[in-house]
Amino acid sequence: MKIPLFKLFLLFSLFSLSLSHEPQNLLVFPRPLIVEYSELDEDVNLRCTSWRFAGEANNLSPWKTVPKECAEQVKEYMTGKGYVYDLEIASKEAAEFAKSLQLQDDGFDAWVFDIDETLLSNLPYYAAHGYGLEVFDHKKFDDWVEKGIAPALEPSLKLYEDVLNMGYKVILLTGRSEQHRDVTVDNLINAGFRDWHQLILRSSDDKGKLAVVYKSDKRSEMEKDGYRILGNSGDQWSDLLGSSVSVRSFKLPNPMYYIA
Amino acid sequence: MKIPLFKLFLLFSLFSLSLSHEPQNLLVFPRPLIVEYSELDEDVNLRCTSWRFAGEANNLSPWKTVPKECAEQVKEYMTGKGYVYDLEIASKEAAEFAKSLQLQDDGFDAWVFDIDETLLSNLPYYAAHGYGLEVFDHKKFDDWVEKGIAPALEPSLKLYEDVLNMGYKVILLTGRSEQHRDVTVDNLINAGFRDWHQLILRSSDDKGKLAVVYKSDKRSEMEKDGYRILGNSGDQWSDLLGSSVSVRSFKLPNPMYYIA
Repeated sequence: MKIPLFKLFLLFSLFSLSLSHEPQNLLVFPRPLIVEYSELDEDVNLRCTSWRFAGEANNLSPWKTVPKECAEQVKEYMTGKGYVYDLEIASKEAAEFAKSLQLQDDGFDAWVFDIDETLLSNLPYYAAHGYGLEVFDHKKFDDWVEKGIAPALEPSLKLYEDVLNMGYKVILLTGRSEQHRDVTVDNLINAGFRDWHQLILRSSDDKGKLAVVYKSDKRSEMEKDGYRILGNSGDQWSDLLGSSVSVRSFKLPNPMYYIA
Repeated sequence: MKIPLFKLFLLFSLFSLSLSHEPQNLLVFPRPLIVEYSELDEDVNLRCTSWRFAGEANNLSPWKTVPKECAEQVKEYMTGKGYVYDLEIASKEAAEFAKSLQLQDDGFDAWVFDIDETLLSNLPYYAAHGYGLEVFDHKKFDDWVEKGIAPALEPSLKLYEDVLNMGYKVILLTGRSEQHRDVTVDNLINAGFRDWHQLILRSSDDKGKLAVVYKSDKRSEMEKDGYRILGNSGDQWSDLLGSSVSVRSFKLPNPMYYIA
């Protein structure tokens, strides 16, 4: 919402200039109107920032769509620098943590990554569906997934390569179903991801489980297989919480949708 | 950072007006300078917002002071509407969760509250110490605590009264030491808090424990005493994580300091 405010004042400046040959009292007219508008705008903006903060801090109850009054802010955030910077700081902090640990030489130190909005971006899909303002449509989203053209989130790709190079075993744990395995593998490879140790998708046994239960169950299996889950990156709290949680978790931003 | 931008453009508008009797080419001079400045400003602002988001999402490694370039934003946030709105949404979501539960009639359903920056605000102290820009000084902070004049955080007071009225047992669990018990009780009462069930402060046995360990130990004792910890409100992740965690936790904002 900052750019419109900026434009508004620029407009106002130009407007003032164009009026400057008119009597002085005309000049004072548009000012209070504009200030009133921008204060309102500012207030909605702050409330929506609070809503986004509350989401990232896991304070919100499950929600279905972005609040209507926040749609514009979410769009601006997702398409502007804010989203990129938030991804960057999450990846940077994760890489520093990853580097700070002394790995054992048995090859069982693992880093878990979610896929959607963590490694791959579905922003092209959400851009065509109101950036979270529309209720999630499984069928349409599956069609998008099957295209296999989701781009990498660059800061996450960097972290991915960093932890690989440090010797972590990378385990991909996604809510996508097994029927999307082939296209998911192709999409990941085309986007630059390589050398993962395991790719776990929802099998028919996992159908109907809440994401937080499904992912906890899978992490528990990893632990039974001997893996030590040191790091976990995901855009949903249901990627990170539950049981068999990692030593440290990194919550990537996502104000567009919520998965329980 | 929005108000300075606003003021800058207002200044620019007035400046333009005052120049409007001058030749036209003079008018174009200040524009690019101002745009350049505000873009830089905007970028630092976005990076600092990302830093605050990362803190609220528990992505940051332990930190000692607010990054210098973010000091201005943190000050504006803490003294402006942003902080209030963030507290309000956290309390609102907590109250809705509290209301959604069916309490048992044995009186063992508990809500845990931290005190500093959760029920009571030390903003007057931090205002005099750079809003987190200065390294924390135990001695000076203790002197402030002993004054016993920390005001209530109003949205938290509202939640406190709400959960009391719903029948929760309120347990206060603070990192303050036992030697501050009397002044803490007086301060809480003067700020409007009443009828808590227990007030737990750090005893000599708890000295040297990390906050997250001390608080987990105390929650574990509550559970052994039969309490079901349904909700927990705190401004530090160390108030909320560890073991014997509550069914749901509510992270209140705090960009001024970090406690491990």
